[in-house]
Amino acid sequence: MGGSVFGSYFRISTFGESHGGAVGVVLDGVPPGLELSEEEVQIQLDRRKGGQSEASTPRAEPDQVHFMSGVFEGKATGTPILMILYNKDARPQAYDAIKDLFRPGHADHTYLSKYGIRDHRGSGRASGRETAARVAAGAVARKLLEARGVRIFAYSKRIAGIQCPDIDPASFDPAVIERNPLRASDGETAKLMMSEIEKAKADKDSVGGIVECRISGVPAGLGEPVFDKLDALLAHAMLSIGAVKGIEFGTGFGAADLRGSEHNDGMDKKGFLSNHAGGIIGGISNGQEIVFRLVVKPTSSIEKPQKTVGVDGKEHTIVTEGRHDVCILPRIVPVVEAMACLVLEDQLKAAAALKA
Amino acid sequence: MGGSVFGSYFRISTFGESHGGAVGVVLDGVPPGLELSEEEVQIQLDRRKGGQSEASTPRAEPDQVHFMSGVFEGKATGTPILMILYNKDARPQAYDAIKDLFRPGHADHTYLSKYGIRDHRGSGRASGRETAARVAAGAVARKLLEARGVRIFAYSKRIAGIQCPDIDPASFDPAVIERNPLRASDGETAKLMMSEIEKAKADKDSVGGIVECRISGVPAGLGEPVFDKLDALLAHAMLSIGAVKGIEFGTGFGAADLRGSEHNDGMDKKGFLSNHAGGIIGGISNGQEIVFRLVVKPTSSIEKPQKTVGVDGKEHTIVTEGRHDVCILPRIVPVVEAMACLVLEDQLKAAAALKA
Amino acid sequence: MGGSVFGSYFRISTFGESHGGAVGVVLDGVPPGLELSEEEVQIQLDRRKGGQSEASTPRAEPDQVHFMSGVFEGKATGTPILMILYNKDARPQAYDAIKDLFRPGHADHTYLSKYGIRDHRGSGRASGRETAARVAAGAVARKLLEARGVRIFAYSKRIAGIQCPDIDPASFDPAVIERNPLRASDGETAKLMMSEIEKAKADKDSVGGIVECRISGVPAGLGEPVFDKLDALLAHAMLSIGAVKGIEFGTGFGAADLRGSEHNDGMDKKGFLSNHAGGIIGGISNGQEIVFRLVVKPTSSIEKPQKTVGVDGKEHTIVTEGRHDVCILPRIVPVVEAMACLVLEDQLKAAAALKA
Amino acid sequence: MGGSVFGSYFRISTFGESHGGAVGVVLDGVPPGLELSEEEVQIQLDRRKGGQSEASTPRAEPDQVHFMSGVFEGKATGTPILMILYNKDARPQAYDAIKDLFRPGHADHTYLSKYGIRDHRGSGRASGRETAARVAAGAVARKLLEARGVRIFAYSKRIAGIQCPDIDPASFDPAVIERNPLRASDGETAKLMMSEIEKAKADKDSVGGIVECRISGVPAGLGEPVFDKLDALLAHAMLSIGAVKGIEFGTGFGAADLRGSEHNDGMDKKGFLSNHAGGIIGGISNGQEIVFRLVVKPTSSIEKPQKTVGVDGKEHTIVTEGRHDVCILPRIVPVVEAMACLVLEDQLKAAAALKA
Repeated sequence: MGGSVFGSYFRISTFGESHGGAVGVVLDGVPPGLELSEEEVQIQLDRRKGGQSEASTPRAEPDQVHFMSGVFEGKATGTPILMILYNKDARPQAYDAIKDLFRPGHADHTYLSKYGIRDHRGSGRASGRETAARVAAGAVARKLLEARGVRIFAYSKRIAGIQCPDIDPASFDPAVIERNPLRASDGETAKLMMSEIEKAKADKDSVGGIVECRISGVPAGLGEPVFDKLDALLAHAMLSIGAVKGIEFGTGFGAADLRGSEHNDGMDKKGFLSNHAGGIIGGISNGQEIVFRLVVKPTSSIEKPQKTVGVDGKEHTIVTEGRHDVCILPRIVPVVEAMACLVLEDQLKAAAALKA
Repeated sequence: MGGSVFGSYFRISTFGESHGGAVGVVLDGVPPGLELSEEEVQIQLDRRKGGQSEASTPRAEPDQVHFMSGVFEGKATGTPILMILYNKDARPQAYDAIKDLFRPGHADHTYLSKYGIRDHRGSGRASGRETAARVAAGAVARKLLEARGVRIFAYSKRIAGIQCPDIDPASFDPAVIERNPLRASDGETAKLMMSEIEKAKADKDSVGGIVECRISGVPAGLGEPVFDKLDALLAHAMLSIGAVKGIEFGTGFGAADLRGSEHNDGMDKKGFLSNHAGGIIGGISNGQEIVFRLVVKPTSSIEKPQKTVGVDGKEHTIVTEGRHDVCILPRIVPVVEAMACLVLEDQLKAAAALKA
Repeated sequence: MGGSVFGSYFRISTFGESHGGAVGVVLDGVPPGLELSEEEVQIQLDRRKGGQSEASTPRAEPDQVHFMSGVFEGKATGTPILMILYNKDARPQAYDAIKDLFRPGHADHTYLSKYGIRDHRGSGRASGRETAARVAAGAVARKLLEARGVRIFAYSKRIAGIQCPDIDPASFDPAVIERNPLRASDGETAKLMMSEIEKAKADKDSVGGIVECRISGVPAGLGEPVFDKLDALLAHAMLSIGAVKGIEFGTGFGAADLRGSEHNDGMDKKGFLSNHAGGIIGGISNGQEIVFRLVVKPTSSIEKPQKTVGVDGKEHTIVTEGRHDVCILPRIVPVVEAMACLVLEDQLKAAAALKA
Repeated sequence: MGGSVFGSYFRISTFGESHGGAVGVVLDGVPPGLELSEEEVQIQLDRRKGGQSEASTPRAEPDQVHFMSGVFEGKATGTPILMILYNKDARPQAYDAIKDLFRPGHADHTYLSKYGIRDHRGSGRASGRETAARVAAGAVARKLLEARGVRIFAYSKRIAGIQCPDIDPASFDPAVIERNPLRASDGETAKLMMSEIEKAKADKDSVGGIVECRISGVPAGLGEPVFDKLDALLAHAMLSIGAVKGIEFGTGFGAADLRGSEHNDGMDKKGFLSNHAGGIIGGISNGQEIVFRLVVKPTSSIEKPQKTVGVDGKEHTIVTEGRHDVCILPRIVPVVEAMACLVLEDQLKAAAALKA
């Protein structure tokens, strides 16, 4: 209800607007006794921050997390953990000029349709800023998962029509991703991508792309058919991220043209012979690497003039000034990872409850 | 919890295995006073039945629905409605030969990993047979939606590499869909598709494809950001259907290569100038047609010999005999529609609760 | 939502009206591999049946349970279990004469207010008949609890003003309860109670009383503060039973007049020195016996003429004929136990999920 | 899950320990457009504060509420509202001496059993301080209810064995309650009560009592049978308050000795002829005044020496110094009202969703 709660067993309740007092999250389900520090959550939050390259917004939010409950002497107590990030670099007045116009691609029109009222300051709740809460919560889930041997990483696979070569999961070093400002899986390709981003920026325009996520070390058996299949939960999680417009698992849309004999993943004594399924069969993890891809639409905020209407019903030309990301992919990568962690940790708990 | 419940306000709780006593569903949230007959639910169930063409299984389940509660003198009373479909044409012994082998592409291995026990008869709960319960419940949601002017239809857009021409939603007549056995949006293309299906059948193989779904008449304002966005809920619903491996909204994966100025849907006085977003912006319906596409993998059950292993850990060659669909798309179409109806009806109630 | 679902981890979804096709329940969360037979569920259902003494209704429902899903070769598979009980001795026409009158003490008026429509046949969903579904589900939870050493029993402590002597939990033999038709904790007192019941019956009237429930072997640590405290969940469960109008734990209302030094349960090395708290402190089980009492109102259906109004708004005198219980306590006892089992099993799973 | 979330449609997620950084609540479901100020929430919080009389703790928390999200220009936006109260007068070191002892009547032992770790500072999450979050959220629900004509008030009916005369709801002026420091329904009786409290204080002891709550103006039709009956939800809500050990509706435990003809509330043209049911029949409000009573145990913290054990397993004598309430009833009254408001507002939304 309300839409700001996610998860059933490891559950988060988020709040906050882009230019309000704070964004944050209440976590329920963190195992008591877990050592937890603001510093380790901060590491993930810093990855999501803006201002890291030409591609990103210059808004300089420190995004500093504060634990206000649920952690005592460095350990989780099993009670709700409030993590709060006070907004520091809000400039609400920057939006005054366009507060009565519907920015194309933005949720201005739909929020007003739904709620009849709208916090126009930097998109309010519809701002990507709410994902900071997801990343903070995801950092806790990630810590729990990594302790079990689960490894999660996502990266920009394609930006502005430029695509990285396919990786070989057996040999790929995820450290590559953090070494380029676009979080691409290939440093050389990242340079070409950046060049396209700069062109778009010069044109007062924006670009989109494709993010790929890979998760290894997941035990077979996660997911709750028939509705809460692991892929269904991941799809729910990913499509809840603002700019994401589609998801595919394993071979994905490519499966449309395959025959069963080509797509089925056979087995021998050593395990599966292929991974067309992307690590999930019948909605349950099969122990293989989980692989999925997301399409990220080009950033809606552009400085190029666009046609729109206002709340007055009249036609206007709008120029979305302010501080925006020409390409949001590098900042979406940690959000994708965070959401994947939340789903997986939730389902690990679900599996424990099933057998209890 | 458990994964067989879907929806928050208009909620279904399903049950049943392919070769057990029955499949069915308990519905909560049907408005009291609604006129409701088994006959009108049966219409949708009949669309999902097998045996309608060369593409489908010859299993001849009557799929007759019985209301056991919640309906009195032809009207819903506001209490839970049990709809039950007794299994009549179960042939559990047909699966005896392969009960200890993991069929490639099937959930045999993952169910055993998860539950430690498995009803092997026709995949048990993992069978597509459970979708009959979804279609029965969806028929009720559809009735409520249609009374509000919502129109929902899905169709096979691509099968075995053969694609229908794009439709013009303004002029397209959905009656076309039911006039060909593949539920394609174009009758001539359906013939070419069927020819490919027959080839695959002759090769003891199977084929996949792409289903497209269109929903018009949805009021602006549905969806509950930030997690229960309308597209996130639809993605959850669709990826919960067995053979579906991906979903995209509006321009979908094509958006990866567009610029913001191309993808943003501008507005003038008469409304939106395009629909790249697929009718959902910021996770909320904008009043335009909702459009999404699903990739359906080729049917896992094929009679072609495949490599696999057994519960004994030894390697085997398996031939999946039995009664299967060479191409599941025409039977998935009503399931897609049903799930879309369940999501929309749920969100209409959510919107009413918000403003109450 | 809807109100027919109970539990979060071990969850039931019930359905059914008194004179409809069936009553029953879908169970989610039964651990896969659990051996389960219709016979063992039937044992509990038979305890709830009518017709066992002068105190009970002569309606002769066999209440035979059928498993329709989720159990394979005598074991739970981890998928939803449908248990259905077909109504066999329904006599809906018996209610024709009073279908437009609001029976005092009954939910006729409130159901019509809420739903605008009402299945008048034997109270429809408001009938005590729906508790058969609770007892069936509770039998499964009870089996799981007993395997862990939990022992649950309830009994009639007071009926029609006649009260059983307090029991000594250390020496009390629960077999006493089933040896008298009123399920009183003392056989001699039961005879006095029955005498009062017969007087009430002769007067075409009904009687109420107090049920006490005791649960031992519960590990310390169950309950989820601050809202889902174990006593809060039990109160929710018990007040959801039709005729129950109040609950108290341990010393209960007697605590109002005690001082802290009298009510606090001190400890020594061997454990607690008293049990004023009734086994729950701070909403969490403390390992002591859980003790609570319920007040059960006198049966609403009486043959004595009463003043009421009809749906026509006019005043009427009503005589509630039909098949009723003069005293419902002996039949409520197994329902109380079933609900307690459902709460405890749910919370055992919650505890497992917390630490996962 | 986790136990800190309450409500389904109007939902709160609370957090915070007695001596941590803050206590507070995230509200989901507040209707967009509602005018809302910190000041009007503060009014209810001020009623719950300590230090108002000899009966209460001298801890001087300002309990000042801050809205951090979900309210824009004085109006709710329909997004989650974070209300936070920073702890200002925490003295955690006051608990150092007894941090390894289990205080009788307190949740020290049970929290440690459940979580394996415990924030001992002033009971941590088990402190009554968490109820500030409930009162803050309840103030919003109350505003919504009062706008619909619902009137809610609770009062101390009995303290330390001294009982107020029964009130006549038709003529009673609730302003009486706030005019005496014990929130009793009768000012003269309050003086006698206070005298008993002072005696207990002199004896380093504490006292309990009975709170009664009355709610008028509730429309007929609230409550969701069969499990989420209105009385079941209220019982859940009330038993979740720390010191409450029992609840009864209407005639309550007195119904045990009545006959059906005495307890049934007959009707004539003008409505019900009595209110033994306490305004709820079949789990649904009937439009009459809702009446229930709660037993509040004597405060567990007393300065009188008590026997207990420590985490070391050894026996100790404990004296609970610190800042405590000799009688908690006057401070529980606003908590009871708040919880009642949360349940009713939730069910008003449930009713709207049902008919949507």
